[in-house]
Amino acid sequence: MRLLIAPASLKGSLSAAEVAVALAQGAQRAAQALGQQIEIDAVPLADGGEGTVDAVERARGGTRRTARVRDPLGRPIDASYLLLDDGTAVMEMAAASGLPLLAPAERNPLLASTAGTGDLIAAAVEAGARRLVIGVGGSATVDGGAGMAAALGVRLLDAAGRQIAPGGGPLAQLERIDLSGLRPDLRGLPIDVLCDVRNPLTGPMGAARIFGPQKGATPEMVETLDAALGRMGEIVARDLGREIADQPGAGAAGGLAAGLVAFLGAHLRPGIEVIMDLLGVEQRIAAADLILTGEGQIDGQTVGGKVIAGLARAAQPRGVPLVAIAGRVTPEAAALYEHGLSAAFSLADGPRSLEESQQYGADLLARAAENVLRLWLARR
Amino acid sequence: MRLLIAPASLKGSLSAAEVAVALAQGAQRAAQALGQQIEIDAVPLADGGEGTVDAVERARGGTRRTARVRDPLGRPIDASYLLLDDGTAVMEMAAASGLPLLAPAERNPLLASTAGTGDLIAAAVEAGARRLVIGVGGSATVDGGAGMAAALGVRLLDAAGRQIAPGGGPLAQLERIDLSGLRPDLRGLPIDVLCDVRNPLTGPMGAARIFGPQKGATPEMVETLDAALGRMGEIVARDLGREIADQPGAGAAGGLAAGLVAFLGAHLRPGIEVIMDLLGVEQRIAAADLILTGEGQIDGQTVGGKVIAGLARAAQPRGVPLVAIAGRVTPEAAALYEHGLSAAFSLADGPRSLEESQQYGADLLARAAENVLRLWLARR
Repeated sequence: MRLLIAPASLKGSLSAAEVAVALAQGAQRAAQALGQQIEIDAVPLADGGEGTVDAVERARGGTRRTARVRDPLGRPIDASYLLLDDGTAVMEMAAASGLPLLAPAERNPLLASTAGTGDLIAAAVEAGARRLVIGVGGSATVDGGAGMAAALGVRLLDAAGRQIAPGGGPLAQLERIDLSGLRPDLRGLPIDVLCDVRNPLTGPMGAARIFGPQKGATPEMVETLDAALGRMGEIVARDLGREIADQPGAGAAGGLAAGLVAFLGAHLRPGIEVIMDLLGVEQRIAAADLILTGEGQIDGQTVGGKVIAGLARAAQPRGVPLVAIAGRVTPEAAALYEHGLSAAFSLADGPRSLEESQQYGADLLARAAENVLRLWLARR
Repeated sequence: MRLLIAPASLKGSLSAAEVAVALAQGAQRAAQALGQQIEIDAVPLADGGEGTVDAVERARGGTRRTARVRDPLGRPIDASYLLLDDGTAVMEMAAASGLPLLAPAERNPLLASTAGTGDLIAAAVEAGARRLVIGVGGSATVDGGAGMAAALGVRLLDAAGRQIAPGGGPLAQLERIDLSGLRPDLRGLPIDVLCDVRNPLTGPMGAARIFGPQKGATPEMVETLDAALGRMGEIVARDLGREIADQPGAGAAGGLAAGLVAFLGAHLRPGIEVIMDLLGVEQRIAAADLILTGEGQIDGQTVGGKVIAGLARAAQPRGVPLVAIAGRVTPEAAALYEHGLSAAFSLADGPRSLEESQQYGADLLARAAENVLRLWLARR
């Protein structure tokens, strides 16, 4: 039989690759004990957040490239991205514009800019990228992607016709957008933004109010930033004819998602969907007799953008059973049954604290996988 | 498909019958959701301890009969047993001679006697029993079955040729055994004793030392009782030619097991083995495509006399997969794989305290069973 092992990470304890190893060990143990051959295809998955580039590199190879870019406060740093043989560049905005790049005292989204993400995009197209895939988790910025746009030749002008300064604060001065200077090699370039949040650009669920505080914004800054993003939305609508403000996901990464759509014509897509494309997961599902996945928790929310839901959507039309092993399986996970999940088991082997479950996670995963395979192989 | 549901109890939270209901609910849920027909044969099992008569009655029917017998201190009480259509009487010694029949202050194994168990046996044979099955858990006594024997006509005599008084203390006066008065209807009657302990009659692992204290014996009483049981072993060996003292299990129920062997020629058998015979479990296994069982804990000890080990022994030669769902599955449970256990899952759905696991036990069991069946039925 062919077993596809396609897990997410167990956040806080095991990476997707570690989960895959544990599941494969358990499955092999069952097969050996029963004297049966199984062929394992393992593909650790990411949902578009942290670890996305690593996951794609592990599965697809490609070349890691490093570029000198600006950090959120304009200081030079090295940031890397992945260039695949087919010309797809995969990058995480956090490599250039991420919150961990700033010391806690430096965090200030009025000043932090996505310029470095623009630098990274420029480096990729200069290296020959013909398609971009951009993960947008973990940003330090709330600048609507203005810094990114400026770095790529877009002119964001104030009332006096001067380029506005970097950061979310100066965005409030935006009066006019001039796309004429945009790098020609970016025109028409396909760009997928891995976007798993549904937050709009502004308002109570917008980028400033929901994500600003964790980036160092005070309540006053949040109001300033929300107004600035609103301003950007208006000018984009007027000058570029694109209504981005209310688009679900536009508020991702401090509105960088909105900027990528507005200035570069990017598409916001569920992370797992793009990752599955990149990793050829649908074809691998089609070739499998059984799919085993792992996840930290399976609940009602999982129907959204997460790994398991993506697998279920692809597995169901092909009739390939999908079995999940998770740290926790809530009763609401039953909603996934009709969407392609065949069965879900917890890795818990009895009464266990969360700490124990995490400490022995790899072992418990392997034992659960062994039992799933034992049951599967036992059917005559 | 035909599913045999054959669980033990989850001691402390759910009876075997309740476990069977929960497992069946989960299995039916899976079958209905998948549009498949399953035929469920449910047989709650007991391991020979408390609940044995109930389990047999539930599965086999028969007639409950009540007899007036002596309690451990000689007071009249009503005790019941089960008489099956084939002439098998099933009884638990605890019904007549059990610890719960005494108030805590009354517990004293120097005085407590198995006379009532003898009364119950007499009632059963008078009612036409042609075979006896006797569960020996929960006794209040450490009298080596002397009271039982005396109630059935055996003469246990002291140096002066007088019948010794009831209880474990007077047993030290035993000088001679005279079987000539034993009820004729007991001669040659097949008697199975459901015996899951391996304790010998005397010594450091014997009936007095291991079980005496929980029956109210002080350290001094324990020494007296151990010596008295040793005395009985010697006289039995000399007068009846039966070496019972070192037989594994002879120490069960304060040595009642030894007495049943010595005086009535009973056989000590693992409880689950006899229960499985009575309930026709082997035939039911042979007719099943899958067996689902439940147990409180599956560990290295389970290889002994417990329900799951009994099922595994019967399932393995017939090639019927056996899947267990338990409150806890320890790593050592893997030892059961080579003895016929196909797979084992915990009912835990994530980090849970023991109290939560018990509180939601039926629900968790049903969900685990649903997932096991979903996985089973998913295999094309």
